[in-house]
Amino acid sequence: MSSILSPASKFKLALIQLGNTGADKAHNIQHARSKVLEAAQNGANVVVLPECFNSPYGTQFFDEYAEELSNSPTVNMLSSVAKETGIYLFGGSIPERSGGKLYNTLTVYDPQGTMIATHRKVHLFDIDVPGKIRFIESETLSPGDSLTMVDTKYGKIGAGICYDIRFPEMAMIAARKGCIAMLYPGAFNMTTGPMHWELLQRARAVDNQIYVAACSPARDMAASYHAWGHSTVVDPTGMVVATCEESETIVYADVDPEQVNTIRTSIPLYNQRRFDIYGDVAETAVVDKDGNGTKKQ
Amino acid sequence: MSSILSPASKFKLALIQLGNTGADKAHNIQHARSKVLEAAQNGANVVVLPECFNSPYGTQFFDEYAEELSNSPTVNMLSSVAKETGIYLFGGSIPERSGGKLYNTLTVYDPQGTMIATHRKVHLFDIDVPGKIRFIESETLSPGDSLTMVDTKYGKIGAGICYDIRFPEMAMIAARKGCIAMLYPGAFNMTTGPMHWELLQRARAVDNQIYVAACSPARDMAASYHAWGHSTVVDPTGMVVATCEESETIVYADVDPEQVNTIRTSIPLYNQRRFDIYGDVAETAVVDKDGNGTKKQ
Repeated sequence: MSSILSPASKFKLALIQLGNTGADKAHNIQHARSKVLEAAQNGANVVVLPECFNSPYGTQFFDEYAEELSNSPTVNMLSSVAKETGIYLFGGSIPERSGGKLYNTLTVYDPQGTMIATHRKVHLFDIDVPGKIRFIESETLSPGDSLTMVDTKYGKIGAGICYDIRFPEMAMIAARKGCIAMLYPGAFNMTTGPMHWELLQRARAVDNQIYVAACSPARDMAASYHAWGHSTVVDPTGMVVATCEESETIVYADVDPEQVNTIRTSIPLYNQRRFDIYGDVAETAVVDKDGNGTKKQ
Repeated sequence: MSSILSPASKFKLALIQLGNTGADKAHNIQHARSKVLEAAQNGANVVVLPECFNSPYGTQFFDEYAEELSNSPTVNMLSSVAKETGIYLFGGSIPERSGGKLYNTLTVYDPQGTMIATHRKVHLFDIDVPGKIRFIESETLSPGDSLTMVDTKYGKIGAGICYDIRFPEMAMIAARKGCIAMLYPGAFNMTTGPMHWELLQRARAVDNQIYVAACSPARDMAASYHAWGHSTVVDPTGMVVATCEESETIVYADVDPEQVNTIRTSIPLYNQRRFDIYGDVAETAVVDKDGNGTKKQ
């Protein structure tokens, strides 16, 4: 497809760096709702919540806090607040129970409150930096098995969760299939956050000439997992256009899909790739039905 | 192949940010020789020269300065100085004439002075940023048609030239085929340099967990093309470990191939990629014979 995208209207993106996420799930859900309302009142059209926003983050919590999507107080809140405010809502992630397994799952809603996509974290967070951090998500979670893109009236948007951002193929595929942005609910920590959180977002943006945003929880030093925070929006040239520190806040950015076309006209990477020397990874992708793609044969 | 590489010895890398490159080709060659000697005297084991170091940089100069590699004063100097000093020499790039065409070509020499690889710039630099910079390399140059990796006693090293760095596949393939580093002679300009020179190197390093270095000419405001300079070495965690400003200098860095293994043990991306969901671009690569690879069928 052409790298120059059809005209789409500008929108205001909001990343909710949610704080006060504790043991009380009902409180967590209600607090998230209040911040989505605040973002919408401030003019946001697309709102993102962080990874694991209805539960403390840790392998020991996932089973207790997990919900089936068909019977989920969290899904009910997300759907109703999206409809109430008329926004697209990327509902962070929650521990999902399905078929006897647990997943780390993002659900996405349109302005009518319809769930238009789900993304189960594809790359589980298993790392062991000696003396710094050990976290083995696969001890309790199962991975998803497809990539996720959704059609919005502002253009197509791709999504991943946290550790997914370390794998460049996801954003390469999304961009080549027409996405104007990749959104990553995430929760980097105090080791990987300062090392890589911003760098990875800027890398995905500059290589693919798309907007990239990552939405973290606020840092809670009383919790067992200390999130880096620093929810950030990067433009299609790779520059940070909005960010924050570690406390609870909402990061806003004006997103102009035409900026994608502007940088692609100046530096026309999309016409210059050498698929005669290396293959196009976008041709190999497994995209789920929500992404309007097709399963790989 | 395993992502954990066999033990290899440390080495000192030198990037020669060459200045005084003018109209006099014989002077340019002699000056490059003097700086390679200086780097070797300071203990460098692997030395990199910048893009287009025997000629001014500009489409109007390539034809006049081009040499056939089989009859090249520049190649003769590079081979003899590599042998004289016992180093691996990544001889920047020169305009190459072959079969009636012109290429932007890197030649690589082992410590015996044998030319062990050539790389013809695969992605030509054609950009047009309105009001900032227009440069259409393909007006006079032809592109190469394969990727390049060389075996050294310190490990396998991949190479690209300048604009090649914008295309992530090259470094992805090199790293997955066992390279510990990607080296890019390059000459970003005063628009793209501050925007992207360092970011692209750090992106290639963090995604592939390899060393990345880019070697620029010094800036000459009397020339028609103003190079950004800032020759830089990035380690396998994505951190800048050596850099400089715009003047003529030599940037040195101690490279420890074991650092590649250390980061890959902490953050084991190589075992976590989901080639069931997206293909492995390394399986599609066209690698030339110098890289000990095989042509794609």
